[in-house]
Amino acid sequence: MNIRTAAILIIGDEILSGRTQDTNVRTIAHFLNDLGIDLKEVRIVPDQKEEIIEAVNVLRHKYSYLFTTGGIGSTHDDITIPCIAEAFDTPLVMNEEATKIIQEHYGDHLNDIRLSMAYMPANALLIHNPVSKVPSFYIENVFVLAGMPSVMKGMLEFVKSCLESGPKVFVNTLTSSVVEGVLAKELESIQQQYSDVTIGSYPFYNYPDIGTSIVLRSRNVDALVDASKKVYQMQIDFGGHPKLDLEVPF
Amino acid sequence: MNIRTAAILIIGDEILSGRTQDTNVRTIAHFLNDLGIDLKEVRIVPDQKEEIIEAVNVLRHKYSYLFTTGGIGSTHDDITIPCIAEAFDTPLVMNEEATKIIQEHYGDHLNDIRLSMAYMPANALLIHNPVSKVPSFYIENVFVLAGMPSVMKGMLEFVKSCLESGPKVFVNTLTSSVVEGVLAKELESIQQQYSDVTIGSYPFYNYPDIGTSIVLRSRNVDALVDASKKVYQMQIDFGGHPKLDLEVPF
Repeated sequence: MNIRTAAILIIGDEILSGRTQDTNVRTIAHFLNDLGIDLKEVRIVPDQKEEIIEAVNVLRHKYSYLFTTGGIGSTHDDITIPCIAEAFDTPLVMNEEATKIIQEHYGDHLNDIRLSMAYMPANALLIHNPVSKVPSFYIENVFVLAGMPSVMKGMLEFVKSCLESGPKVFVNTLTSSVVEGVLAKELESIQQQYSDVTIGSYPFYNYPDIGTSIVLRSRNVDALVDASKKVYQMQIDFGGHPKLDLEVPF
Repeated sequence: MNIRTAAILIIGDEILSGRTQDTNVRTIAHFLNDLGIDLKEVRIVPDQKEEIIEAVNVLRHKYSYLFTTGGIGSTHDDITIPCIAEAFDTPLVMNEEATKIIQEHYGDHLNDIRLSMAYMPANALLIHNPVSKVPSFYIENVFVLAGMPSVMKGMLEFVKSCLESGPKVFVNTLTSSVVEGVLAKELESIQQQYSDVTIGSYPFYNYPDIGTSIVLRSRNVDALVDASKKVYQMQIDFGGHPKLDLEVPF
């Protein structure tokens, strides 16, 4: 199986300062899940040239796709686009299609600053923006997205057609009041029997609501069903009554 | 000024799969702001040994402090602790103080799995856990925290006394309906006059509620006040009526 991988690079002082709660990671994670692409790493870096360029170059070579978010507006602190150009060692040029879109969108309110948003790396291709209209771009395997969640989501819809999808990972979740310290040994033995299934254990502790969610993830439906049955039986054996959230019922 | 820097390493498939919305970055960011420590980078990696060890070793050398979250429970997918030991090339040993705490906490419900949570790198020091009691640890400049937000927060309170704080960064935010494409040139010229102040521009676009928040951050109070006044006047000049959120009023 040829499984595509991905990373996200979040560019923005506003996330690192705690001013803004990031939600883009989760949105992109769900988007990639649906396409069967594995999200393997996320980095958040400040609005600093060297940090951005280094992260872009590491991540674009390590994974099939890289998605950046943030830093593509029109103010002095928006430096993502020149950094991407420098990472690819390519000049920034005025993109004709982007120029037309920006001219049409702003009409009489067009100014130099707004027009400057049409500058992109020489061999970039447009990512259309159904929300606030000003387009972004992708170059090779790097997709440059807005930071604003509503705009980012709109761009993702366009990006879908540019990606090679893969077989989907199915997820079964079984939640019960049995705590980790009780089920850990038995759960490990189930994990050892199913190398095709990744089993995660996530305790919750909102006293008196205490317990564990067991999350099973696999591209192999038969193995997922078998392993899920064993986890179910294990929870019953320990006196739990599992609540089921199953993509593949058994 | 001797300014301390920090990074966060989030360890967990559950964040990369989109199952869980991370909130720990923001909590730690605010915590560090209050201590005058600059958060410079965040990485999110899966529950995979090589990825964790590499990230720990890069980040602990690059920044004054590294905070990890996640992967310290008692199940097979909790591999943070052996990875930290391997990153420091130090053996895991049973920590006596941790053993006592775990024995007292579990009493008659103690078992091998629970006792195994007392294994820590040889030269680690305890981080106490006021929420779910089982302690974590720090080794040199690396603080190993729980992933569960309530437990993580409790541990942070303890960690405070282990950190060297610095002069606080003060933040003034001025929000108006003036959009970026209108104020970008003038804002850049204000930024150029104040090298001690970092000025960020954050547009919002919830039609018809459109505008820009200008966020000024500085350890230099005089420069912050002067730059804030200029941003205020700029917004007035462009017909905006700025809403003020000021740590340093002017």
